[in-house]
Amino acid sequence: MTLLQSWVESANSADTDFPLNNLPYGVFETNTLEPRCGVAIGDMILDMAAMEENGLIDLAEEPVFDVPYWNDVMELGPEGWAALRNRLTDLLAADAPDQAQVAPHLVPMAEARMHMPLVVTEFTDFYAGKHHATNIGTMFRGAENALPPNWLHIPIGYNGRASTVVVSGTPIVRPNGQTKAPDADMPSFGPSKRLDIELEMGAIVGTSSEMGHPISVAQADDMIFGYVLLNDWSARDIQPWEYQPLGPFQAKAFATSISPWIVTKAALEPFRTSTPEREKDLLPYLREPGPMLYDIELEVTMAPEGKAPTTIARTNYNQMYYSAAQQLTHHASSGCAMNAGDLLGSGTISGPEKDERGSLIELSWGCKETITLDSGDTRTFIEDGDTMTLKGAAKGDGFRIGFGDCVGTIKPAIKFP
Amino acid sequence: MTLLQSWVESANSADTDFPLNNLPYGVFETNTLEPRCGVAIGDMILDMAAMEENGLIDLAEEPVFDVPYWNDVMELGPEGWAALRNRLTDLLAADAPDQAQVAPHLVPMAEARMHMPLVVTEFTDFYAGKHHATNIGTMFRGAENALPPNWLHIPIGYNGRASTVVVSGTPIVRPNGQTKAPDADMPSFGPSKRLDIELEMGAIVGTSSEMGHPISVAQADDMIFGYVLLNDWSARDIQPWEYQPLGPFQAKAFATSISPWIVTKAALEPFRTSTPEREKDLLPYLREPGPMLYDIELEVTMAPEGKAPTTIARTNYNQMYYSAAQQLTHHASSGCAMNAGDLLGSGTISGPEKDERGSLIELSWGCKETITLDSGDTRTFIEDGDTMTLKGAAKGDGFRIGFGDCVGTIKPAIKFP
Repeated sequence: MTLLQSWVESANSADTDFPLNNLPYGVFETNTLEPRCGVAIGDMILDMAAMEENGLIDLAEEPVFDVPYWNDVMELGPEGWAALRNRLTDLLAADAPDQAQVAPHLVPMAEARMHMPLVVTEFTDFYAGKHHATNIGTMFRGAENALPPNWLHIPIGYNGRASTVVVSGTPIVRPNGQTKAPDADMPSFGPSKRLDIELEMGAIVGTSSEMGHPISVAQADDMIFGYVLLNDWSARDIQPWEYQPLGPFQAKAFATSISPWIVTKAALEPFRTSTPEREKDLLPYLREPGPMLYDIELEVTMAPEGKAPTTIARTNYNQMYYSAAQQLTHHASSGCAMNAGDLLGSGTISGPEKDERGSLIELSWGCKETITLDSGDTRTFIEDGDTMTLKGAAKGDGFRIGFGDCVGTIKPAIKFP
Repeated sequence: MTLLQSWVESANSADTDFPLNNLPYGVFETNTLEPRCGVAIGDMILDMAAMEENGLIDLAEEPVFDVPYWNDVMELGPEGWAALRNRLTDLLAADAPDQAQVAPHLVPMAEARMHMPLVVTEFTDFYAGKHHATNIGTMFRGAENALPPNWLHIPIGYNGRASTVVVSGTPIVRPNGQTKAPDADMPSFGPSKRLDIELEMGAIVGTSSEMGHPISVAQADDMIFGYVLLNDWSARDIQPWEYQPLGPFQAKAFATSISPWIVTKAALEPFRTSTPEREKDLLPYLREPGPMLYDIELEVTMAPEGKAPTTIARTNYNQMYYSAAQQLTHHASSGCAMNAGDLLGSGTISGPEKDERGSLIELSWGCKETITLDSGDTRTFIEDGDTMTLKGAAKGDGFRIGFGDCVGTIKPAIKFP
């Protein structure tokens, strides 16, 4: 597939994240427009509420775009999603007849402020990156016991906190929490000293499954609406003290950032790729009928306050051991009802090489090594004022499918009341 | 405090769960009424949507009762909650002047079907019963290592799944899942063979806290709207294989049942009691300014299909080591935003004695002992067709504050697609 041509000139560049091939979904406001659904095209946003109001898009009996979330569109299901994408492609293609009617509803991206693109009903975070799980396991349990015995059989996950999933650009307040040094008698309470990122992709569930009813991997893939970049902020000093026996809780609950744009499964279709060969056969319910990962290049940058960013890691979503479809199937396998708006974090994405690690704890190998930034500053974990940015794009022949950056700047912890 | 007299005669019995002292909140429908908010009084339900429509209750500018959830009332905050309770008490007291206007809006409970009383935004389950944690720990790790080292310092909890919290009476489908016998090479997938209950109380958060901002225990207590009975259904064979290192997931995700009535904090006020003496000092952020547990007698019954129930355990909510207010404070301590509609499970409530254990795995001591029912049937875990019922009431001088039973009957697992 090559770059599709649009009459929106800025969409025809090899460098834009948002060519006609992409058409990702977000929620934006401007000084004059209330928050509403929009579609990115080049350096513009198509105001979907206005398009609907003016009859240029007519997807459902009730309006679905004049709201600050894409959940109503999700509820239309895969046929509705395909109809919308076809209509948008027709309206924005180079030879589209309706340009004069559509053009007034394009808003410059530079004038827009982005909001959460969806209401996250529930958030689940997985642990499906084998290099990451091996790295973390080696640090905590030694190389022989790095991977837990269930890891090659189960896409391991835990329920996260939906109330603190925020859009890129939202400041992240350093969490407080209980920590205990191995040699201390008592724990203490205060700001985390080991604040970290986790570079992940988020899959957005677009249709619902019924309580009590498991789903196949093929059904799960059909249920996925799209993908975002996801930063699972983590307090590495809170987690070891709290996480036995019931898993991470406050070490993860304070914030999760996502990119402003939901890239649809349709846009990513040319980039499908397979999960790696299995070291142990998967149980039949988890076997994939086809390639369900995607080739998406990922990057992390770090910038001290007022200084230029340094790229500290590059990796690819194709490194995962389990796809989002497999994770969703496992999630529903007990009969757990899944809903439109559920967000599934992939787990930290690290590659096999040292500069492909998707978290600071891996990059600094548990504080043993220092990360030196281009500014000359050194880091093991994140300091107040630092800005962390995730970037991602699937790269085609002369075009890219981007997500928009996923950015967060750290603010000092708030003193306990 | 003694029994308050109402002109609704059935509310004046020492045996009713719903005297004027209680006034719990539920959602009901009948053959002629759509699901809506109702208040239990004796063997009747006061139709709050009708009361509001007829101007007998006027709580907010917009209607808040003609919906199938109490979340809108929660949003009014503690002042609104107090105003509502005062108004209801005035309207239903023995000497109330408005009886003739109110009486037409009473619906016999026997004609009503109960729905979920709230939209659960997120569900968190704790592990705050010391006897339970000690019993489980002894079975799995031996008596010396029964309590994890963090247990006396942290109200340990994990995020659960809100999509499968259901009202009493909803059938529970036996979950499928991965299990692995210790001597097996590979895991297998199929219906759980060790289905269990967990007897818990659920606290309902009624107001919201801001992301990044911790709250004190006093603030947390003010945020709690009310309490329900809660059965945290658990698959004991799925959990051991899946739960390391990130905690319980599918072993708990398939279902959680709650009682149909939310008993308000105001109704429980006379029954406040303190958490037990601390074995180790709590960190200051977790210390309670006053008694924040409640004296609520609890009971579990088990009935094979078509047979009479047997009481298999009796215990009391006052056995907990941490209160819901302490749990809520810890939950928000990292800066995790809490929302009206959040549900916090207390953790399994067991007493010190053998017949005070709130789960079958404790009652059967990990399958080593058989539970014999009055019908002559024996059980270690739950079989298809069995009905499990939680009962609870705070008992005053000649009156009781009940929750309505929390019932679930097990249906066979659904075959994987």
